[in-house]
This record gives sequence, C-alpha cells and structure tokens, in this order.
Amino acid sequence: MKSQTEYLTFNLPARMAFENITSQVEAVVKKSGVKEGLVLVNAMHITASVFINDNESGLHEDYKKWLEGLAPFDPSPTRYAHNRTGEDNADAHMKRQVMAREVVVAITNGKLDFGPWEQIFYGEFDGRRPKRVLVKVVGE
Amino acid sequence: MKSQTEYLTFNLPARMAFENITSQVEAVVKKSGVKEGLVLVNAMHITASVFINDNESGLHEDYKKWLEGLAPFDPSPTRYAHNRTGEDNADAHMKRQVMAREVVVAITNGKLDFGPWEQIFYGEFDGRRPKRVLVKVVGE
Amino acid sequence: MKSQTEYLTFNLPARMAFENITSQVEAVVKKSGVKEGLVLVNAMHITASVFINDNESGLHEDYKKWLEGLAPFDPSPTRYAHNRTGEDNADAHMKRQVMAREVVVAITNGKLDFGPWEQIFYGEFDGRRPKRVLVKVVGE
Repeated sequence: MKSQTEYLTFNLPARMAFENITSQVEAVVKKSGVKEGLVLVNAMHITASVFINDNESGLHEDYKKWLEGLAPFDPSPTRYAHNRTGEDNADAHMKRQVMAREVVVAITNGKLDFGPWEQIFYGEFDGRRPKRVLVKVVGE
Repeated sequence: MKSQTEYLTFNLPARMAFENITSQVEAVVKKSGVKEGLVLVNAMHITASVFINDNESGLHEDYKKWLEGLAPFDPSPTRYAHNRTGEDNADAHMKRQVMAREVVVAITNGKLDFGPWEQIFYGEFDGRRPKRVLVKVVGE
Repeated sequence: MKSQTEYLTFNLPARMAFENITSQVEAVVKKSGVKEGLVLVNAMHITASVFINDNESGLHEDYKKWLEGLAPFDPSPTRYAHNRTGEDNADAHMKRQVMAREVVVAITNGKLDFGPWEQIFYGEFDGRRPKRVLVKVVGE
C-alpha cells in the first residue's frame, strides 16, 4: 500500500467564501503514484469545510444566503452560548456541520473518479486567517 | 491491496425520491473478494445523495417534507441566483448537502459491517433522468 | 495491508447528548499498529452520529438548541409520519443527518492527523439505551 500526505493552506479574505481546490487535490494524487485507491480531503479547522458540488458562482451565493438563514452570524452573547467564551463564531461551527468536514473520493486509473460536474471546494465560515486542509492518498 | 470499481445507474420517476441500494452494494463487495477493508459509495451527480438510514416509508415522507422546508423548490429567478442560469434546481444542490454525497462503510469478514437498521439509500433531488453512483471497494 | 475492527458501546442518560470519544479512537489506532492509513468511525445506529468539532460545552448547548429548531422532537402522530408506526424519534433521524453518520480520519506516523481543535464526538439523539460505534482502521 502506498500513501501520500499533503497539507494545503488557505487564507481567504472574507468571513464566508468557497474556493475550488480540485486541481490541487489532483496534483497530490498524481504525485502519489496511486492508480487504485481513495483520497481523503478534510478541513483541519472546525469552522471550515471540504465539500463537492458545482463550480457556479450563483449557487455559491445561494449557499451563503441559505447557510446564513440556517445559522445566522451573531457575535453577541445572547443567541449562542459559545459566544460568551470570547469567541464570535458559533454560527461558523454550525454552517460547517451542514456543509461537512470531509470528502472521500475514489481514485481509478490514477485519476479522481468524478461525475461530469463534481468539483472539490474549500468552504470557509470564519476566514481572514490561514487554515489548513489535509489530503491523504492511500492505495496502490 | 485489492480494489473493485462499479457504477450503478438510477433513473427515478419523481423529482425527489429515495431508493434502497444496499443489496447492489453488497453484490459489489462480494464480487471484490475483499474480506477486510472499506467501501465508498457516492453520488456522481451534485443534486443527488447517498446516505444511510432507516428503510421506513413514513420516515422517507418526513425527510421529503423536512428538506422541502429547509430548501424549497422554486424555479423562479427570484429566490435563487443559480436559477438565473437556465437551471431550476438550486434547491436540489442544498438538499443534497443536508443528506450528504457519500458513505464509507467498513467491510468485516467479507460483509458490510452494519448495525441492526442500517441501509444504504440513493437520494434523488432532481430526478427523471439517469444518474450514476460509484461503488469503490479497497482492502484485502 | 493491516486492519483493526473495534466496537465501542455508549449508553447516554439523556435523549440528546455529545460525548468526546477521541481517546478511545486513539487507543484503537495504537493497537492496530498502523502508521499510515485511514480510520473510519461511524455510528451503527440511525438516530446517532459521529462528528468532529470543538470540545466546548457552550457550543454543544448551541448545537442542541439549533438542532431542536431544525427538527423539533414531537412524539405525536401529527407532525411526522414515522411517529405513526409506534416510534417517537423521527426528529432524531433528521438531527443525525445534519450532524452526519461518520468521520474518516487520516493516520500519519501512527497518530490521528488532526488540526489544533479537532476532537471526535459521539452524538446521541434518542438516548437512554446502549448503542454501538464502529472503529475500522486500515493501512500499513
């Protein structure tokens, strides 16, 4: 069994933003030499996400509005107990649960085995600081 | 390390529907000959889901109502920016995030290592056309 | 390829509760002898969750309130069709979908490859009875 471990760092300039990281994951898979296996891609921070969906900017705006409706940003100590600890990002911990921490993608013939529109995104919900994403390839 | 890759195709006659695909995944695991390992099962389309839950029709109706409440279908260009691109399925991209893209299941002694009620479902949120599910087995 | 399979049992005294299971997962990884690989940790019951987030009690209270808002407990047969079958836990099946069934964590140099705040939690949404969590390690 081969394995490859890489860490990607992102520092997005907005509180909430999505970045397409597909080509960076593809580069790690290529470097690994794995032809058949799995690649795990996960946020290493608990107010961020890695997810697979469409590379369409309108949809990304829709996601932002929708997530804000499900778990509104509110730095006051009134709404969220977490924000009585000196933090202001309880909402980001919730948004990340909806969008998920990680994806596991099949590697077939040395490539990400994707449907026609699948792209991997880093999802940031409490940005403006560097955060890491882990890419772990296992296979043969 | 052994691996096995199969693609299942579903064409569900409703916009939103759930189909039990457990036996099809079991067949791929059996065919692979893997006794100890993991199986990844994921939707290859971004308005569909693979998830594990209960094989109970009342619950499935509840899921449909609940998801419709969280992310209502609305083909108009007013609510969702994505639906200004000629698409009408922004809601389906959201429903799929709640229900998730994929499951990873342990294989122990050649079988899906499941609790008493776990069953694998294909979740469709923009149906009436063929879509694929990937099944990837890795192990020994 | 090495593998290790363990089952953890939890019997939480509340209907909804979160328990930090990181050290128990670490113990299984250590026992496996795997230095490079993946560990799958999943709830074996469909009204429970395994997720990764912050070990902060205020946030856990926020999660409970938030999930109760998204999918309220209601044992009556009126709101949920599932609760016409003799069950009262339709809400728990929904809460589990938001918080997810499973996590897959990278093992690097024999350890869980975690960011600074990542901790693994068992999430219970219909407690006061024993339920199992599966830990499956694969790698070398």
